Amino acid sequence: MIKGLGQHLILELWGGDSDKLDSLELVEKALVDAVEACGFHLKDLRIYPFSPQGITGVAVLSESHIAIHTWPEYRYAAIDVFTCGESAEPRRAIPILQSYFQAEHIQVMEVVRGIFPLYD
Amino acid sequence: MIKGLGQHLILELWGGDSDKLDSLELVEKALVDAVEACGFHLKDLRIYPFSPQGITGVAVLSESHIAIHTWPEYRYAAIDVFTCGESAEPRRAIPILQSYFQAEHIQVMEVVRGIFPLYD
Repeated sequence: MIKGLGQHLILELWGGDSDKLDSLELVEKALVDAVEACGFHLKDLRIYPFSPQGITGVAVLSESHIAIHTWPEYRYAAIDVFTCGESAEPRRAIPILQSYFQAEHIQVMEVVRGIFPLYD
Repeated sequence: MIKGLGQHLILELWGGDSDKLDSLELVEKALVDAVEACGFHLKDLRIYPFSPQGITGVAVLSESHIAIHTWPEYRYAAIDVFTCGESAEPRRAIPILQSYFQAEHIQVMEVVRGIFPLYD
């Protein structure tokens, strides 16, 4: 059987609310809610403000990570949900993140990481 | 002109040295060296050990982030180099990371993030 170790969602959020995309509190809440909804386990959560605007948020998980970079001036956010393990459900993060940032639309690409033959 | 805000290298490292992939010190050094070689600016660097093995390392940059997840038991690492800005050269990280972990081979996918029309 060919297995993949990780599931990596690459999300592009467009037409979001600029104020929400520049809110440290909201980025943190969005990460916490997404982690919980997916069944992930949070190891660490860090939020970094940028000047004059923009935020990076990183949730380090037992199951890998979620990273958010926001560009409020373009009403855009780039989000990666990288997870491993069988039980977590990373796609549940998608509507939560879209809703928090009131994104008009969202593009999703899913990449399986660490694919190689493991003959059970 | 159609611009992209971010450049995202998705790296798959195979056949690495298990001990190196499980060394906190080495993951940290690899991140610091990769950041420097690429001309990135480090905002924060965090290394998280996993039990019984495996490491997550996150370098938060002025230009976005580098994330490393190692699976020493499979001699594998999944690495993301996500950067924005014109001046940084993220591909310079590739040989450095390969060398640190003595990976036999490496797969690279490059994704442009945040593509949309900006008419200058």
